[in-house]
Amino acid sequence: MKKASQDISLPRRSFLKKAGVGLAAGAGIAAGMGIAAPKVHAQPTLRWRLVSSFPKSLDTLIGPSEAFAKIVGAMSGGKFTITVHPAGEIVPAFGVLDAAQNGTVECAHTAPYYFFGKDDTFALGTAIPFGLNSRQMQSWLFAGNGLTLFREFYKSYNIINFPMGNTGAQMGGWYRKEIKSLADMKGLKMRTAGIAGKVQERLGAVTVSTPGGEVYTALEKGTIDAAEFVGPYDDLKLGLYKVAPHYYYPGWWEGSAQTDLYVNIKAYEALPAEYKAMIEAAATRSQVLMHAQYDARNPIALKQLVAAGAKLHRFPKDVMNAAFKESNALYAEISAKNPRWKKIYDDYIKFRAEQNMWFRFAEAGFDDFMQAQKL
Amino acid sequence: MKKASQDISLPRRSFLKKAGVGLAAGAGIAAGMGIAAPKVHAQPTLRWRLVSSFPKSLDTLIGPSEAFAKIVGAMSGGKFTITVHPAGEIVPAFGVLDAAQNGTVECAHTAPYYFFGKDDTFALGTAIPFGLNSRQMQSWLFAGNGLTLFREFYKSYNIINFPMGNTGAQMGGWYRKEIKSLADMKGLKMRTAGIAGKVQERLGAVTVSTPGGEVYTALEKGTIDAAEFVGPYDDLKLGLYKVAPHYYYPGWWEGSAQTDLYVNIKAYEALPAEYKAMIEAAATRSQVLMHAQYDARNPIALKQLVAAGAKLHRFPKDVMNAAFKESNALYAEISAKNPRWKKIYDDYIKFRAEQNMWFRFAEAGFDDFMQAQKL
Repeated sequence: MKKASQDISLPRRSFLKKAGVGLAAGAGIAAGMGIAAPKVHAQPTLRWRLVSSFPKSLDTLIGPSEAFAKIVGAMSGGKFTITVHPAGEIVPAFGVLDAAQNGTVECAHTAPYYFFGKDDTFALGTAIPFGLNSRQMQSWLFAGNGLTLFREFYKSYNIINFPMGNTGAQMGGWYRKEIKSLADMKGLKMRTAGIAGKVQERLGAVTVSTPGGEVYTALEKGTIDAAEFVGPYDDLKLGLYKVAPHYYYPGWWEGSAQTDLYVNIKAYEALPAEYKAMIEAAATRSQVLMHAQYDARNPIALKQLVAAGAKLHRFPKDVMNAAFKESNALYAEISAKNPRWKKIYDDYIKFRAEQNMWFRFAEAGFDDFMQAQKL
Repeated sequence: MKKASQDISLPRRSFLKKAGVGLAAGAGIAAGMGIAAPKVHAQPTLRWRLVSSFPKSLDTLIGPSEAFAKIVGAMSGGKFTITVHPAGEIVPAFGVLDAAQNGTVECAHTAPYYFFGKDDTFALGTAIPFGLNSRQMQSWLFAGNGLTLFREFYKSYNIINFPMGNTGAQMGGWYRKEIKSLADMKGLKMRTAGIAGKVQERLGAVTVSTPGGEVYTALEKGTIDAAEFVGPYDDLKLGLYKVAPHYYYPGWWEGSAQTDLYVNIKAYEALPAEYKAMIEAAATRSQVLMHAQYDARNPIALKQLVAAGAKLHRFPKDVMNAAFKESNALYAEISAKNPRWKKIYDDYIKFRAEQNMWFRFAEAGFDDFMQAQKL
């Protein structure tokens, strides 16, 4: 019966072998060898490895990988198995791009902006200061040009990307002392990175890269003055409120933070169409689950943080204004020298302008009224 | 080979037949009859019908059904086929609940609040005045108790529901004359329905149910004074700005509007686990696509509407305040007499209070700043 072999042609199988993909002796090959089973749709048995940039301890960040693997497994009846490896298990947190690019593993879950050192363009895939909020980012990716543009960009990295989770708007981090005006940013030793760090430096801050495990002690000792992480739910676990109680909002450099599934493009192309569709749908469902979990858990964690002594402050207006101005100046500089950035950024800010206009009306009109009520 | 038949046991097959589900003679049955194909996973060939409450002309509203059917088809390699039938093709727009409940069809896509006449509780599945915005609704459904509570509620309708699309915050409709204060609501003949209509009546308005096709003429002739629909993208198609140019925001009765896939529970239970997982993931992906499309298209349509003469106004504060007060009074009345409503509503407003508190900080802090900028 030849039809059953249609999804596992020989060249594909040989690629799968080369790429280290386990094609179980039973199912796939048996079907490929033409055992009689008229019209039975035989899918190959596959085992993929997914490396995450996130540790097991951050459940909302490792969560999308686990959900993704579980959904693909359920839809394929256990034939397409994806094992999830937290940061450090196969490769370090920031080694996941290389691993997916080189085919060491088939896929990775990460925040693209970790790789801005390779190319500033990566930052646009997660967050840039004063960028899109999570609804707008999702709309740009799923109904605007965002995903098309990024897939073009990622081709040179042998990767196809799938949006897979967003944190929503983040907080602006933990500070040992209050920031009362822009003047207080001068000389502030802040643990931050990426484009946000570049903007903070333009405001006079000194950016420091402290390893994750040393942030608490560095703040306690005063080696650093401030550190930012994500939002209440993740921040609560770090306990930074004990040593740097001033908790600022909004995280103007992360109005939302998008994370992606990176799939090695050859591994992807070798998949039968059914598995490709499963990857896309499972990634999107994981996108929703991660965002919903953050939204559900952040309010409760924020209350706990405040009860434990965290002091909430809004960033002073002059800090926000200066940061906005410096961000735009920085973007102009990057646009002038990086055509890959410029191509995506130009589309991104056009979309941002339209979204921002629209959100002023029905969305903000509704939210503003609700936020003024005692509920 | 007995293992291949595990997903199509005889009782299930006999149900599928009774329910009018096509089980093709080839694939499923052949596998069930034990033709030798070791470990080949044989999925049944199924054909389902999906009836939508929406017409073909409203592409963002019929869109989730079409996307859903396409995704399931792709993931199953064309074995699980779902045909999409717009409102009126098999059953009328508001006949879809009965059709899914009775097994006339296997599934339906609709806005639950259409059925508030059967039970006010349905309204909580789509929108109630001053309810959850779309992020919050999604979080309540996917990470809070929302979906669990609704699945319990829908059991008595023989239905299992899957969230499948949201419009975001809607506009407050089209008015022939300006609404300058609460006094202008007195006697206003407004085309609206459901719980929103009940609140508007408490503000002094007269709610009118005008068939969709007659709204334009009724507004033109002054038979009605106002009509509401969705948001800029859908509203542009209706052309109401020509006869009732005053376009109000926010649609305080629809801070977001959630739509659902209803699946007949027996048809669902008869599915192999793989197809169940596909339905869930495909519905969630359609949820994202619909919302992203609205968000991407509304800004452009709003600009077109304004260019064509629509005049944007924010509802006067006294109208909003009175509507909020009357909504709460109405909810207390419904809670006192409907335990099904009360059970879900109590959880919903607890969630709303937490979300509303949290959104004041990072989310609103970010959005407010952005909306004050010229981009």
